[in-house]
Amino acid sequence: MLFALKYGVDLEIIQRSSIMGKRTGQLTLPGEENFFEETKELVERLGADAIRDSDGTHLDPKSKTLPVKIYSTYFVARGHNEFAKKHPEECQQFYLMSKPLTAYSSHLEIPYMEGFFPKQVSPDFDHDPKKWWELIDRSTGEVVEPSLWSLKTEKKEEGNHYLLILENAIPFHRYTLSFLAYALWDPTELYNHITNQWGDKPGDIPFDIRKPHSKAFAKSCLSQWLAEHPDTDVVRFTTFFYHFTLLFNHEEKEKYVDWFGYGNTVSTDALEAFEKEYGYALRPEDLVDEGYFNSTFRIPTKAYLDYMDFIQRFVAKEAKELVELCHKEGREAMMFLGDNWIGTEPYGKYFSSIGLDSVVGSVGGGATLRLISDIPGVRYTEGRFLPYFFPDSFSPGMHPEKEAIENWISARRAIFRSPIDRIGYGGYLSLAYKFPAFLDSMEKVAEEFREIHQAVKGQKAYNKCKVAILNAWGKIRSWQAYMVAHALYYQQIYSYFGILEALSGMAVEVEFLSFTDLLENGIPKDIDVILNAGDAGTSWSGGEIWQNEKLCTMLRQFVYEGGGFIGVGEPCATQYQGSFFQLSDVLGVEKELGFSLSTDKYFKTEKTAHFLLEDFSKEELSFGESKKNIYATEKDTEILEYSDGSVHLSAHAFGKGRGIYMAGLPYSPKNTRLLLRALLYSCGKENEYALYQATNPNCEVHAYPEKGLLAVLNNSQVPQDTGYYDGKGRLQEIHLEAGEMQWHRAEKL
Amino acid sequence: MLFALKYGVDLEIIQRSSIMGKRTGQLTLPGEENFFEETKELVERLGADAIRDSDGTHLDPKSKTLPVKIYSTYFVARGHNEFAKKHPEECQQFYLMSKPLTAYSSHLEIPYMEGFFPKQVSPDFDHDPKKWWELIDRSTGEVVEPSLWSLKTEKKEEGNHYLLILENAIPFHRYTLSFLAYALWDPTELYNHITNQWGDKPGDIPFDIRKPHSKAFAKSCLSQWLAEHPDTDVVRFTTFFYHFTLLFNHEEKEKYVDWFGYGNTVSTDALEAFEKEYGYALRPEDLVDEGYFNSTFRIPTKAYLDYMDFIQRFVAKEAKELVELCHKEGREAMMFLGDNWIGTEPYGKYFSSIGLDSVVGSVGGGATLRLISDIPGVRYTEGRFLPYFFPDSFSPGMHPEKEAIENWISARRAIFRSPIDRIGYGGYLSLAYKFPAFLDSMEKVAEEFREIHQAVKGQKAYNKCKVAILNAWGKIRSWQAYMVAHALYYQQIYSYFGILEALSGMAVEVEFLSFTDLLENGIPKDIDVILNAGDAGTSWSGGEIWQNEKLCTMLRQFVYEGGGFIGVGEPCATQYQGSFFQLSDVLGVEKELGFSLSTDKYFKTEKTAHFLLEDFSKEELSFGESKKNIYATEKDTEILEYSDGSVHLSAHAFGKGRGIYMAGLPYSPKNTRLLLRALLYSCGKENEYALYQATNPNCEVHAYPEKGLLAVLNNSQVPQDTGYYDGKGRLQEIHLEAGEMQWHRAEKL
Repeated sequence: MLFALKYGVDLEIIQRSSIMGKRTGQLTLPGEENFFEETKELVERLGADAIRDSDGTHLDPKSKTLPVKIYSTYFVARGHNEFAKKHPEECQQFYLMSKPLTAYSSHLEIPYMEGFFPKQVSPDFDHDPKKWWELIDRSTGEVVEPSLWSLKTEKKEEGNHYLLILENAIPFHRYTLSFLAYALWDPTELYNHITNQWGDKPGDIPFDIRKPHSKAFAKSCLSQWLAEHPDTDVVRFTTFFYHFTLLFNHEEKEKYVDWFGYGNTVSTDALEAFEKEYGYALRPEDLVDEGYFNSTFRIPTKAYLDYMDFIQRFVAKEAKELVELCHKEGREAMMFLGDNWIGTEPYGKYFSSIGLDSVVGSVGGGATLRLISDIPGVRYTEGRFLPYFFPDSFSPGMHPEKEAIENWISARRAIFRSPIDRIGYGGYLSLAYKFPAFLDSMEKVAEEFREIHQAVKGQKAYNKCKVAILNAWGKIRSWQAYMVAHALYYQQIYSYFGILEALSGMAVEVEFLSFTDLLENGIPKDIDVILNAGDAGTSWSGGEIWQNEKLCTMLRQFVYEGGGFIGVGEPCATQYQGSFFQLSDVLGVEKELGFSLSTDKYFKTEKTAHFLLEDFSKEELSFGESKKNIYATEKDTEILEYSDGSVHLSAHAFGKGRGIYMAGLPYSPKNTRLLLRALLYSCGKENEYALYQATNPNCEVHAYPEKGLLAVLNNSQVPQDTGYYDGKGRLQEIHLEAGEMQWHRAEKL
Repeated sequence: MLFALKYGVDLEIIQRSSIMGKRTGQLTLPGEENFFEETKELVERLGADAIRDSDGTHLDPKSKTLPVKIYSTYFVARGHNEFAKKHPEECQQFYLMSKPLTAYSSHLEIPYMEGFFPKQVSPDFDHDPKKWWELIDRSTGEVVEPSLWSLKTEKKEEGNHYLLILENAIPFHRYTLSFLAYALWDPTELYNHITNQWGDKPGDIPFDIRKPHSKAFAKSCLSQWLAEHPDTDVVRFTTFFYHFTLLFNHEEKEKYVDWFGYGNTVSTDALEAFEKEYGYALRPEDLVDEGYFNSTFRIPTKAYLDYMDFIQRFVAKEAKELVELCHKEGREAMMFLGDNWIGTEPYGKYFSSIGLDSVVGSVGGGATLRLISDIPGVRYTEGRFLPYFFPDSFSPGMHPEKEAIENWISARRAIFRSPIDRIGYGGYLSLAYKFPAFLDSMEKVAEEFREIHQAVKGQKAYNKCKVAILNAWGKIRSWQAYMVAHALYYQQIYSYFGILEALSGMAVEVEFLSFTDLLENGIPKDIDVILNAGDAGTSWSGGEIWQNEKLCTMLRQFVYEGGGFIGVGEPCATQYQGSFFQLSDVLGVEKELGFSLSTDKYFKTEKTAHFLLEDFSKEELSFGESKKNIYATEKDTEILEYSDGSVHLSAHAFGKGRGIYMAGLPYSPKNTRLLLRALLYSCGKENEYALYQATNPNCEVHAYPEKGLLAVLNNSQVPQDTGYYDGKGRLQEIHLEAGEMQWHRAEKL
């Protein structure tokens, strides 16, 4: 179809039907017992090619008669309490830390289990506490000689009351006890139990496949299960052996959650094996980490990195054996990215050795989509979309289709950059069935997904530049920076996580690099821009590593020779040799900590027009939590936003490249545009801006020049008019309906 | 006069006339040539008993005929260019640091004078640069071997162009040069010169009385001057030898200002004498301090404290000799607190040994008044009030009386706590004379001042408690914490300086203690509350000293036994052993730096009614620059303000005492009230609150029970109704006109 357009350029819209050959497949629905006819109807209507069960639902026995693959959720290390109870010594373990307690006299009693949920964790007295526990004087950091303390267990009505007693406490010092505990309840199952009020249903006891009986049991169990489930095509491991750290308190409320936490991987066997292999013993403190438990926000210690590697190799090796069992039986092995995923890091060194066929994960937006779709070493990936078919979204009067469309649109732009291979849903299909508008939205999503996948899978998308996210973790935490729990909002992270969300659907290549990568291998040749973002002292910003002259020198040279450096929040921050931002010469800005108040700050004048600001009025700029006390150090620093006595956005030429500072970048369409402009400006690729680019920030263009195809997306849920630049920089004007995507012909480059 | 009052209590207002016996004296006016008759008129009208000259004005020769003392401004170390030019090697010196410069290749040229004002400072080549200068690689902190660099001076039209040339630079390292320079121009005189556009008038060259000729000259000069000025009664030293650090840039704009800076005390002689005495040599870096020049915001190093002590002893010894010359001639010696005051710290160890009769200083408000009036070791103190009689406040259409009354009212409350002995003014009297309303305000101020002084001087004011301000400096920086330039506004300080301003006129005793004081001598027995306030890492908060278990233990015990601890901003802050606020157990709050995001924060509920909040609606609370990410760690933390995800005001019981957290305390009448309540609540003296206390926050009561007298002040410039509690807690209701103060009978306790 041809339109005559402004500027005399021909615009060729490609009919969706010409792209979409296939109207079925690549879709997984949840199944349900006694819901067969409706399931069949939906499978046909939506073109589903797989159905799945989940924790709490079972498939109807007739499911196998449908033209679909059967996914079966499989739990490796829980759900066999008869076995677990027979081998209590093979129960999984934690190192826990008691709440810091101040001694008021030389007699100190620490009720160390206080604040924990006794049904979830229980002190381990089987392994000598005097050997495995640590009482630490937090006023000095010193370990208290174990002979000085004793343990006491008082039986009370509400349960055991555990005490550590220290008679030689130093008054007004603070003490913590790091102690080994058994994990009595799988945390996800416990969460479901609490949330769904499952009452007396006993909790699943997690067992540790590092132990001999558990290891043998896990394998034989899977073999037997495969034999008993001939209909299962895909074994959906949920997941392998160790749950991320998730602790509840005595009131059954969440107490501690770290989606990356290795808390549950601990055991005396593991620690002994570690010592044997690495030649040094880990202290409890190496894992307890002052109570921070090596959160990904902490700069990882060598001991913790060793331990992670140790666990990852073990998990990969053991998981591989289970996967091989599946393959031997002709089944596929799929891993759920979550729950008991610790040690399987998909961007880690050992992941591909597991031999999985696929990974499925929950999609909260663009960044979490990329977290799944970028995973290397599997044949296919699947995204589970929101909302989950649970009553919290599917009760009368609710409009789950709204969340569904929002979720889809936020993920869709990322699919254009790096397509997942399948989509799916979870929960009770019978619930969703009652919401016709939601079923319509599923249909629309499935159609669009197939269309995109078919058009772009395997195609090289046009990229304007390549950016590396630099932090202490690098690749292993690809798309996982600034996360605490999986994709949940935290006030302290959204101003940084927005960077990932913005990048997830942007026409740029993204790589994740660690400081160690740079120090060992230098900056990869294909990187145009390096971005460092985070609060001072965190792993994301980097802390004292910035006192390493090699790192700073390398980055200065990189920018000097034409690369870009973007710092967000408190980048390259450590107080050293008269600077806080160690690359303040590159950025042209510094942070005032109070030490340099005596020095006059001259440069406060905003530039009124600038390449970075072209999409914005000043009022629209938003830096989220933002930062204070940032000032320009150089006359030639381009101050792009200055308010409340502080620079929040600036650019500064350094040699052929530029340093750009941003006080924060919460996700929004406009901030996505700002980041894109910053990336291009920093590395001198401004000319790339007006190629395959929409003028309206609510719209985006994704181009596949080799295929002669481009898509223009309306990322908003209202109609939009937009211009877009084609690959030759010619402007086209088009109209898009709410959430619409249009395919246009792109000239081959 | 008796009134019948509510509650049946008799209220006895004391006529001001009964207090004010004396209507003259205690007032200094500036004199002026050819303005004798008017001066005489004003001396009589205002009851002045002293007139003064100043930098730029001279007294009329007939002045001595007036019944006043004559103050003469005297400059010790400047104003004799004929001498200074004869002894250029005795010129004062600086250590300066060049702007950090990044090397782009192995050839680096540092134009080290760039950014300095060549008329103010000039490199010192007389003392071997290879010995006295330091080129530092700021990427490593290492000093570059002097043999590797060379110096070059290029003569250019606009003046000399100085270069350091390094051929072995490490590319992309940053370098700074610390170099000795001569001071060619007294900074205050330079400031006046620039401000008043004095054109070709040559600048006063400061000479260093550490050098032999200058030392002899300064003394003989003073002797001669005294002989030539028999009319002078009071030699007003402005000041002694070394100016606070004040540098200008090449555009004649202020570049660096530190009212406490020892920059100008440096010389090779001083450094050599130091080494001889202390047995170790100071490096330039000990003074340059990474470019921070030992700002009072920096935690002082041992080397810098040694150096300060060294200079103070020298200054005191030399100043004493000049003071003795005055005394020998029957004159008084008065010191101006400012300008060349470095080394005379009035709260330092050696000040009283100088033997001064008095100190005069500029009053910007209550805290700066106390800075003067609390000075020990002199017979009397004098406050110079604002505005200065200069055209910036005294031009047609202006209302200088407004600033005068504001200044007076802000200082008056402090006078009630600790009276200065005299007041005065500065500038051109002829200017003030043209503003009758201003003359009226002077008359009112002088009368009120005499009245207050007469009533309360030497009286013990009723105090509700005693608070110690704890920081790295302690006593020597009494009332000077959080200051950069003298009493100027900085965005980074007002939220802390407000504490001092509030305390300056509050019915509490105030002491300033250093961490060293505490560690060496423990907490003085009479202290009720300890207050630590500041940004993390600054000398005011304390930084790593908080890792000293002795300090923390001492403070915990203090609070446990009933004392109060108030933390403002980032108190007791250093990341150590799982805490950032090291007294988080006392405060019941912590700051989230990102490391503990995984730990759930349960406590967010504000208390709706509380002793601290009784004067406030929530909307009125103001924490100035405030702090983010503060959370309650304890269930029993009383959260008094919670917004934007953060606690900004809280209280927490710890044993018999309490810890109180405030995110900031800019000065306001309401915040003064809040601080008073916090002080009393923290140490369990809430019962003191309703004694000698006004109910209206714009009003304050100052009581002198032994004299049977109290004053109720209206600190606002509109009429106020207020109740006040007398010494028995009985409530009286009164009306006060704008700015009024009333004397009432107080029952003797």
